[in-house]
Amino acid sequence: MTGWLAVAGLGPGDEAMVTPEVRAALAEATDVIGYFPYVARVAPRAGLTLHGSDNRVEIDRADHALRLASEGAKVVIVSSGDPGVFAMASALFEALEKQPALYDLDIRILPGITAMLAAAAHAGAPLGHDFCAINLSDNLKPWELVEHRLRLAAQADFAMGFYNPRSASRPHQFARALEILREECGPDRLITFARAVSTPEERIQTVTLRDATPEMADMRTVVLVGNSATRRVGRFVYTPRSA
Amino acid sequence: MTGWLAVAGLGPGDEAMVTPEVRAALAEATDVIGYFPYVARVAPRAGLTLHGSDNRVEIDRADHALRLASEGAKVVIVSSGDPGVFAMASALFEALEKQPALYDLDIRILPGITAMLAAAAHAGAPLGHDFCAINLSDNLKPWELVEHRLRLAAQADFAMGFYNPRSASRPHQFARALEILREECGPDRLITFARAVSTPEERIQTVTLRDATPEMADMRTVVLVGNSATRRVGRFVYTPRSA
Repeated sequence: MTGWLAVAGLGPGDEAMVTPEVRAALAEATDVIGYFPYVARVAPRAGLTLHGSDNRVEIDRADHALRLASEGAKVVIVSSGDPGVFAMASALFEALEKQPALYDLDIRILPGITAMLAAAAHAGAPLGHDFCAINLSDNLKPWELVEHRLRLAAQADFAMGFYNPRSASRPHQFARALEILREECGPDRLITFARAVSTPEERIQTVTLRDATPEMADMRTVVLVGNSATRRVGRFVYTPRSA
Repeated sequence: MTGWLAVAGLGPGDEAMVTPEVRAALAEATDVIGYFPYVARVAPRAGLTLHGSDNRVEIDRADHALRLASEGAKVVIVSSGDPGVFAMASALFEALEKQPALYDLDIRILPGITAMLAAAAHAGAPLGHDFCAINLSDNLKPWELVEHRLRLAAQADFAMGFYNPRSASRPHQFARALEILREECGPDRLITFARAVSTPEERIQTVTLRDATPEMADMRTVVLVGNSATRRVGRFVYTPRSA
């Protein structure tokens, strides 16, 4: 087999955050596969086929990529952020697991700047000490598990980053998450809403849990919650290294 | 003030993982400040002064950078990985906090590929669902807090990434961390030792907690622990999206 498959992170949106490693893979690819808006970030050229697909078809997309690569194509699955953080890398391995004949295929995961860390950088350093990352969507896991992790993370005094905090189909869950955080962390804890990070529409807003409302988040928002030592300095928010 | 200060992440080692945003800041800088081995990654040129310093002088380094920038210099503090993850961004804000006169200085944090996520990419997707990042060093916090966070993270069934797992000055602590993990997660949980990720000396080894020994880690190692669903597929290890 001369084909290969790379799962590449395009970062949160700004082209200046795409690594040269990812650029090189895209330059060599014969096929680029991914969710429409991510594929739209790749410039068309002769010899390259762009395969945009809809959201929530991750396994179909992974199967398609595995098939093309096994037939000799040079395939890049594009992911926003980092493919290993709530993105396409796990879906690829779920698909691969069912096809042992392909275990020796040339597969590489190319990391990217994940939204949580770009948001943290633009807010200051709110994840500057021990932290956790939680996907608040219950598409693939029970909401009870989300609540359990939120409580233990708060009790461990982790700073936190939340992906997929809120969608139209489940508007009440993020309100419930804020309630749990207020119970566990108190009303003065800082929370940062970072929307469309590194794009022209970027908006970053830090408030206390007392003043946080569910409407401050949508599906383009990453939410960062400080730990007990997180504080403001000038226009920034940061967590000291000793906490 | 026409000076500015950027805290820039150089990624884990491979130059192909340095973002164009970071390259652009380095190209405009008049002064680059950082720990010797990171400063050594920046090519000398006319008009650029390289200021390498020793480890564990983070606040001195931050004060130096703030002073130069406030005097009009274009300063980049270089950090390995991502500056916001157990690196220089928090130290900068600790130093800034004491100098309110500088709160309006042009300061930017430029994210990079952090070692944990590069290690995860090269291992597969072990952090493919909810995860936490813990600095195992007790230089700046009590060891009891580390143990507390380890236990709660295991009870929350987070995948985990550990920075600074082991040093010559505290060889017993990582052995203790492995004991706690075996107690909380059982002997079959997968653990990945990723040393010198993305450099020519990279070595990635996945074993069960039963077979893990403290000697598998040193200060160039990032350690990744799976959650209860993490498993092998071919030569990779991954955590499914539903866990």
